[in-house]
Amino acid sequence: MTADDMTAALVERRRRLLGPAYRLLYDAPLHPVRGEGVWLVEADGRRVLDCYNNVPSVGHCHPRVVEALSRQAAILNTHTRYLHDTVLDYAERLLATVPAEIGNVMFTCTGSEANDLAVRVARSVTGHAGFIVTANAYHGVTATVAEMSPSLGTAVKPGDYVRTVPVPDVYRDGPEGAAAAFTRAVEAAIASLAEAGMRPAALLFDTVFASDGVAVDPPGFVAGAIAAVRAAGGLYIADEVQAGLARTGSHMWGFERHGVVPDLVTLGKPMGDGHPVAALLARPEHLAEFGARSRYFNTFGGNPVSAAVGLAVLDVIRDENLMDNAASTGRRLHLGMARLAERFPVIGHVRSAGLYMGVEIVTDAVSRRPSGALAARLVNGLRTQGVLVGVSGPAANVIKVRPPLPFGAAEVEIVLDRTARVLGDLEAQGALT
Amino acid sequence: MTADDMTAALVERRRRLLGPAYRLLYDAPLHPVRGEGVWLVEADGRRVLDCYNNVPSVGHCHPRVVEALSRQAAILNTHTRYLHDTVLDYAERLLATVPAEIGNVMFTCTGSEANDLAVRVARSVTGHAGFIVTANAYHGVTATVAEMSPSLGTAVKPGDYVRTVPVPDVYRDGPEGAAAAFTRAVEAAIASLAEAGMRPAALLFDTVFASDGVAVDPPGFVAGAIAAVRAAGGLYIADEVQAGLARTGSHMWGFERHGVVPDLVTLGKPMGDGHPVAALLARPEHLAEFGARSRYFNTFGGNPVSAAVGLAVLDVIRDENLMDNAASTGRRLHLGMARLAERFPVIGHVRSAGLYMGVEIVTDAVSRRPSGALAARLVNGLRTQGVLVGVSGPAANVIKVRPPLPFGAAEVEIVLDRTARVLGDLEAQGALT
Repeated sequence: MTADDMTAALVERRRRLLGPAYRLLYDAPLHPVRGEGVWLVEADGRRVLDCYNNVPSVGHCHPRVVEALSRQAAILNTHTRYLHDTVLDYAERLLATVPAEIGNVMFTCTGSEANDLAVRVARSVTGHAGFIVTANAYHGVTATVAEMSPSLGTAVKPGDYVRTVPVPDVYRDGPEGAAAAFTRAVEAAIASLAEAGMRPAALLFDTVFASDGVAVDPPGFVAGAIAAVRAAGGLYIADEVQAGLARTGSHMWGFERHGVVPDLVTLGKPMGDGHPVAALLARPEHLAEFGARSRYFNTFGGNPVSAAVGLAVLDVIRDENLMDNAASTGRRLHLGMARLAERFPVIGHVRSAGLYMGVEIVTDAVSRRPSGALAARLVNGLRTQGVLVGVSGPAANVIKVRPPLPFGAAEVEIVLDRTARVLGDLEAQGALT
Repeated sequence: MTADDMTAALVERRRRLLGPAYRLLYDAPLHPVRGEGVWLVEADGRRVLDCYNNVPSVGHCHPRVVEALSRQAAILNTHTRYLHDTVLDYAERLLATVPAEIGNVMFTCTGSEANDLAVRVARSVTGHAGFIVTANAYHGVTATVAEMSPSLGTAVKPGDYVRTVPVPDVYRDGPEGAAAAFTRAVEAAIASLAEAGMRPAALLFDTVFASDGVAVDPPGFVAGAIAAVRAAGGLYIADEVQAGLARTGSHMWGFERHGVVPDLVTLGKPMGDGHPVAALLARPEHLAEFGARSRYFNTFGGNPVSAAVGLAVLDVIRDENLMDNAASTGRRLHLGMARLAERFPVIGHVRSAGLYMGVEIVTDAVSRRPSGALAARLVNGLRTQGVLVGVSGPAANVIKVRPPLPFGAAEVEIVLDRTARVLGDLEAQGALT
C-alpha cells in the first residue's frame, strides 16, 4: 500500500467505528504519532509546526506535566467527596490569578461542562431565562450550550431564550464605533427578550471572540454592553476557554484586557496541556444561593491527578516566562504578517493579542469581500508545507493562528516564510486576482 | 493541632475555595493520600477498605493503567480531528463487547456528557420531545440531564417533557409482578406525554437502578417497558455508567442481563480506572441522521492518552479474570450478607448482581419500613471501622456496596465482620429495636 492508500484505509476504518458525526481537518488529514514542544511528527516521519493547538498550551508532552501526571496517577486518583490538599492548592493558585472579587472554583472536565454549569448558576442566581451570545459563538456541545453556539450550524436549533449579537467589524467599520455598536446590539437583544417576556440571565462571550473571526480591539469595547446587561439584572460570563491562561501576552485572562471583572469565568482547553481539566470561577455571592439549594459533584472533575497536572501547567507558565513570550513572539508574528499583507493584498486585516491571531483573507483590498475559498486553499497549502493553522468566522475566511505558548522567533520565521511561499504559488497560479 | 483540628481546618479551607455546592461523605470526612488495589490509606496512616468506589474499577492506581497513561502522555496527546490508531483500536475493542447491532462509538470525557449526547441523538432521530426516567434517577449534571435526574432533589426542576416511573419493589411486592408493573408505569408515562401533546424520544434508565436503591431482578423485567416505548416511536437508552464493564459478573454490560439490545448505550465512571474516559455507543442507523446534520467534536474526548488508558483497563479485566471474580466474590458477599440478615432483621433485603449490591435497611422485618437514619449510622459506623460504603434510594436506606473489581474472599470476610460488629454495637445500644 502507498502512504495515500494507508491514510484512506485509516479514514475508512475511522468512519466505520466512530460514525458520521466526526470531522477531520485538512484535505490531506494529519496522522501524528509524536509531539514535542511546538512540533508534531507524522506517521511518515514528517515534522509539522503546530500553530493551531492551544490545548497543549505549554507544548506537546511537556516533561514536567507528564511527570506530575505520572507521579500522582501512581499514588492516588479519587474525587472531591473526600478531602485532598492538591485540589485546594490548585484552586488557590488559580484564584491568585484573578481579581479578588472572584473567590470560588468549581471543577469540571471540559469547557462544555464549565459553560453548562455557568448557565445553571446564572439561571439560578437571576431567576431569568434569557441568554445573549455572539452571532457565530461556540461555547460547547452539551444540549444546552449547543443551543448557545450558532457556529454549530443550522442542525442545532438556537434556544428561543437565546439572542445573538454581531461582533464589531473593526476591519471594515474602524475601531471608533466598536464599543457603541456592541452596546447597542446588546441593548437591542435585551429589548427583544423583554418583548418575549424574558429578562437576561447572562451575556456570555469568548473574550477573544475566536469563533467569530477573532476580535480583540479596542480594549474595553465590551464594557458598555456588560453594563447594559447588568442594569437589566443579568450576569457577565467570560468564556476563557480560548483566550485564557497567558495566551494574550498582556494578561493571564482575556477579560482583563477589557478592564471589567466578570461574574462567572469558564476555563477549559489549555488548563491541562491536553489532559481533561476545566473549571468555573465565580464570585462567592453567586454560588451562595446556588450551592445552598443544589449540590454539585463531577466524578472526575477536580481529582488529584488533574489538579497535579493543572498545577504543573501553572508552574511551567511561570518558570518559562510563557506570558512574556506570548507577548513578544505574538508581536513579532503580527509585524511579520502585517508586512506580508503589504505584499499580498488578499491579507485584508491582521489582528492579534499575544499568541491569538486572526488573519482575514479577502478577495481584494477594495471590496474587502471575505474569501473562505482562498482561506481554505491557504490553510491546506500551509498544511502541505508543514505548518498547521485553522480557520474561523462566519465566512470561514479568517486564518486562526494560536500555537502552543513556547513558540519562538525561529518558528515565526517559518510561518512567515511558508505563508509567503503558499501565497506566492497561488499568485503564480492566478488564484489571487 | 490535633488530627481533628487539622481535618476541620482542611474542611474550612475547602469550603472557602470551592464554595458551598460541594458535599463530603461521612460524618468524619475521609482524607486519603494513597490508593492501592482495594485499599485507601488516610493521612494519619489508617488503611480503609474501599467497598464504595466503582471508578477505580480495576483497583486504585493499577500499575498497568498508570504505565499506559504515562507512556502515551509522554508520546502524544491530541484529538479526534487528526487520525490516530489507538482511539480506533479502543473503539474496536469496546464494540467487540456489545451485540453486533451496536456499531459506533463516540467519545466524551464524562458520563454526564455521554448521557447529554444520547439525549441530543434521541431528539434528533425521533423528532420527539418526551423522556421517561425512573423516580429517583441520576444521569448527570449538565443542565439537560440534571432535569432528568430527580435524585438531585427539588432544587433542580424536572423538565416538563420528563415523566418518571417507579422502579418495581421486589422486596415488598415480590418478583412476580415486577415486569408487568414496570411496563404499566411506562405505558402510563407515554399516555401522560401524549396528553401534553408529546411523544417519547426515549426511555432512559441505569441498568442496575443504582440511585433508585439498586434493582436487578428478575432478569428481563424491563423488556415489556422497552417494547412499549419502542411501539410509541421512542428509543431505549441504557445508562451503563454504574452497571457496566464486567461489574455484574455474568455479563460485561448490565443491559445484557435483561436480554434486550439498546438503541444507545452510555458509558462512564469505570472506563479509565479514575481517568476521565466516557463514551456513547450507538446503532449506526441512529447516528446516520444525526451525523449527517451535526458535526461532533469533544476536545479531550477520545484523545490518544484516554484511549490508551481505556485499552489498558480492558486488558486488565481480561487478564485478571475480573468478570469471573465479580461473579464469585459477589456471590460470596451476597450469601454472607444474607446470613447476617438472619441475625439482624434490620437487614430487610439483600439484592445484587456480581459486585453491585444493595442492602436495604428497615426498622423491622414486619413493617419493612425504610430507615435512612439507621442506614446512616451503619455507613458511618463502617467508616469508623475502616470500611467504605454508601447509601442509595429515595429514603437513603439502601447500603450501596460496589468495590473495585479485584475484591476477593479475604475482603468479603472483613466487610461481613465489620458489618456484624457495627450492627452488634448498635444492637447493644438498643438502636435496632
